[in-house]
Amino acid sequence: MTSPIRVTVWGENFHENSDRDREGMAERYPDGMHGAIAAGLTELLGDQVQVRTATQDQPEHGLTDEVLETTDVLTWWGHATHGQVDDKIVDKVYQRVLGGMGLLALHSAHFSKIFIKLMGTSCSLTWRNSADTELVWTTNPGHPIAEGVPHPIVIDEQEMYGEYFDIPHPDEQIFISTFSGGEVFRSGCTWRRGKGKVFYFSPGDQEYPVYHHPDIKRVLANGVRWAAPDRAGEIVTPSVVSQPPPIFTGRGLKEDK
Amino acid sequence: MTSPIRVTVWGENFHENSDRDREGMAERYPDGMHGAIAAGLTELLGDQVQVRTATQDQPEHGLTDEVLETTDVLTWWGHATHGQVDDKIVDKVYQRVLGGMGLLALHSAHFSKIFIKLMGTSCSLTWRNSADTELVWTTNPGHPIAEGVPHPIVIDEQEMYGEYFDIPHPDEQIFISTFSGGEVFRSGCTWRRGKGKVFYFSPGDQEYPVYHHPDIKRVLANGVRWAAPDRAGEIVTPSVVSQPPPIFTGRGLKEDK
Amino acid sequence: MTSPIRVTVWGENFHENSDRDREGMAERYPDGMHGAIAAGLTELLGDQVQVRTATQDQPEHGLTDEVLETTDVLTWWGHATHGQVDDKIVDKVYQRVLGGMGLLALHSAHFSKIFIKLMGTSCSLTWRNSADTELVWTTNPGHPIAEGVPHPIVIDEQEMYGEYFDIPHPDEQIFISTFSGGEVFRSGCTWRRGKGKVFYFSPGDQEYPVYHHPDIKRVLANGVRWAAPDRAGEIVTPSVVSQPPPIFTGRGLKEDK
Amino acid sequence: MTSPIRVTVWGENFHENSDRDREGMAERYPDGMHGAIAAGLTELLGDQVQVRTATQDQPEHGLTDEVLETTDVLTWWGHATHGQVDDKIVDKVYQRVLGGMGLLALHSAHFSKIFIKLMGTSCSLTWRNSADTELVWTTNPGHPIAEGVPHPIVIDEQEMYGEYFDIPHPDEQIFISTFSGGEVFRSGCTWRRGKGKVFYFSPGDQEYPVYHHPDIKRVLANGVRWAAPDRAGEIVTPSVVSQPPPIFTGRGLKEDK
Repeated sequence: MTSPIRVTVWGENFHENSDRDREGMAERYPDGMHGAIAAGLTELLGDQVQVRTATQDQPEHGLTDEVLETTDVLTWWGHATHGQVDDKIVDKVYQRVLGGMGLLALHSAHFSKIFIKLMGTSCSLTWRNSADTELVWTTNPGHPIAEGVPHPIVIDEQEMYGEYFDIPHPDEQIFISTFSGGEVFRSGCTWRRGKGKVFYFSPGDQEYPVYHHPDIKRVLANGVRWAAPDRAGEIVTPSVVSQPPPIFTGRGLKEDK
Repeated sequence: MTSPIRVTVWGENFHENSDRDREGMAERYPDGMHGAIAAGLTELLGDQVQVRTATQDQPEHGLTDEVLETTDVLTWWGHATHGQVDDKIVDKVYQRVLGGMGLLALHSAHFSKIFIKLMGTSCSLTWRNSADTELVWTTNPGHPIAEGVPHPIVIDEQEMYGEYFDIPHPDEQIFISTFSGGEVFRSGCTWRRGKGKVFYFSPGDQEYPVYHHPDIKRVLANGVRWAAPDRAGEIVTPSVVSQPPPIFTGRGLKEDK
Repeated sequence: MTSPIRVTVWGENFHENSDRDREGMAERYPDGMHGAIAAGLTELLGDQVQVRTATQDQPEHGLTDEVLETTDVLTWWGHATHGQVDDKIVDKVYQRVLGGMGLLALHSAHFSKIFIKLMGTSCSLTWRNSADTELVWTTNPGHPIAEGVPHPIVIDEQEMYGEYFDIPHPDEQIFISTFSGGEVFRSGCTWRRGKGKVFYFSPGDQEYPVYHHPDIKRVLANGVRWAAPDRAGEIVTPSVVSQPPPIFTGRGLKEDK
Repeated sequence: MTSPIRVTVWGENFHENSDRDREGMAERYPDGMHGAIAAGLTELLGDQVQVRTATQDQPEHGLTDEVLETTDVLTWWGHATHGQVDDKIVDKVYQRVLGGMGLLALHSAHFSKIFIKLMGTSCSLTWRNSADTELVWTTNPGHPIAEGVPHPIVIDEQEMYGEYFDIPHPDEQIFISTFSGGEVFRSGCTWRRGKGKVFYFSPGDQEYPVYHHPDIKRVLANGVRWAAPDRAGEIVTPSVVSQPPPIFTGRGLKEDK
């Protein structure tokens, strides 16, 4: 694709504005988590991308038809207010993914309506917030999403996400993480849904400055490039087709059958 | 499993009672399609199964909590009134599949709410009703679902279902069908969702007596046996777990990292 | 399958007899590693199985045509003398797996000729022998191989096997292990090859008494039951078929194509 | 990748020179089948590729270390003389694929040593040479290999290849073909092996001029672009790693375990 990938970085933007978290968030993510993610993509991909942000508190959650129709890859971070996302918007995002738009579901977006709808499972997991060290190991070293990252990526402090992670068997297993407490998590997984590509990546949390980590920024940039549709101008959701005449004209079976 | 598999054969029971189709259905399926499917299972599996039927026109679509809680494998056939199935019942079936109940989605159930919810795709396809001959080829000959069926199964007359069939890449591809018009369809596919097993099988239609075909009966019987949970008494939907203390006590990194 | 599963437990039987390891092995595995594995299967599966052992130092490595033809599931443990296994025997095992025999490749058998031949990859990995604690986490809780084992299995001391493990993407991911040093390993994986089922399971080492661990014995017993062919009497390797006459008699395309 | 993809088109070059086939081949493929394939790639991909050919009758089958080390994607067509390909060359190609080189295995290359070695199965199939019409249906419409081809591709006359095709479950199923005789074949499949990508595509035969078909040329061009390594300069076969010190320093279990 020679024209830039049009990326919309979607953020819940709740912790940034909640009484409990405002102060810490301002320190860790002065431009919001969506702002940090967007800045990382622009820093690493330059004019390969056109990046904008959208947040849940905007009209239509910032995902108007016009925005969606000009989005090649959508990244999604949500946590505290999944339940308040409008089902109508979720369905529009879903249709667009099936049509070919790429989706990056990040960290606590495992429980977002859009991710659950695309997976068809509970997407539940085990968790513990005790500042574990996370090691992110590459299990698919030839994959473009794993390009240019160390083996393992070391994240000094992070929320623990552990198995059993109730997801469909991934089409590709890119990363698996371990935690200093001993747990394991399939932290980087891909699936196709319709014509669209989905990448789930778990590192990243509101309480830790993970989205400033250079290796995590690299993975997200790789993920955006991977998830971009091959034919950005032709995103159409699959639909039922009434196929009129047979292609072969003969339909008899041979005698001895 | 030594105790019998408890099977509930669910039918839409619409064509059987509609003005347009009643007469033909009475000829092809005097006990309803659900009745024919249930009879085939009992005929082939005997005391390996306990079979009952449930239909959409019953209270709670025949799928009360008591029925679901005593169902190991559910077979689902619907077509004309998918939209009228209560979302609350669909969600109960969904939770039970994730907990371990097997599901056989049959023919036009590709567009049922429960199948779409488990797949996360549009499940759309190409179709034509012109009495094509269908050949059902085995592409996984060691699989128990393919046991005892010819290669190919020949169905003299059947509705054509063709690609593109918008489903996630199957975990296992058991059958692929061709049609006398030249089309192709992934007609027998499996997926795991949570702890449950899902088998989609396309042969079977209200306008053709396909559920009386001995090879199709065999595939359904095999499918029920395959989809039965390994631990029928322990069907519990996966849920989020707050995991308290770390298992490993040390969490320091070695110095040179 | 109502008749017992015929299991052949194959062992390299090298460490048991080498000057360096003889003493320690006699303590950990007085009947050899193959003896311990065989005893565990008999203990847990009783008359569901008929278990015998075969070792590399026997004529034809103990795998005569007669033995192979009466084996439903073969378990394979080798380490120091992979290179001395006769290619002709490897090919016979390979043909039998493609025909439907189950294979359990255990621990260092990742580098056995038979496993590499079935995988088509280097099967290389990362390792360190420093008495790490291994935690074996279940990532497919509905799978019969995971039945009845804790989450995680705790192995106090074990050799570390880590990623990148160069294997094809598993058809099913049953277990993933972490180690006290922080590493991760896809320790329980399945694949179909031809009509046969292959289960790789990494816990188990000559220097640690892992095959006496009750949970590891349980996994091996589950694995044997899972890998057993559905049709034990019909093990035939797939071969090329010259298919004489067309099934459909008409082959013209419709005019407008 | 901004520098051109370095493609080596490998041909058996036997039918071109055999007494039986020389005349017909000269008509259908005046520059050999490898020449036709190479010309198609250059025609469609222009300066995105650097294409050369190599044939079995050359020293080292044309695949010297120098050639392999400067090949990003290798296409392989063989049929009558698979058995005469030197195992040492096959092993070099195998190591290079595991290191990241892309491989396109074409038509009768299903029985080539390199394809069987990468698959770990018999790769046997059903066949009949009776000038069937083949329809190539897309089952993964978002995939780059399917870009720009009709649904279905129509090949007027072609050898029939049918199921059961004894291959591992494909990582991706791109195309499935039907034949006018009623058979079906998984004609376009992908797998990862190590860091390399493998694409098998069945249309193409010495007796039919299929490699001049514009849609087949398009698929091959798409396949070459897809199979190109993401990091062409870094092709290294995975190998065993002795990983010295643990990353985490603590290894005790918590008391209550």
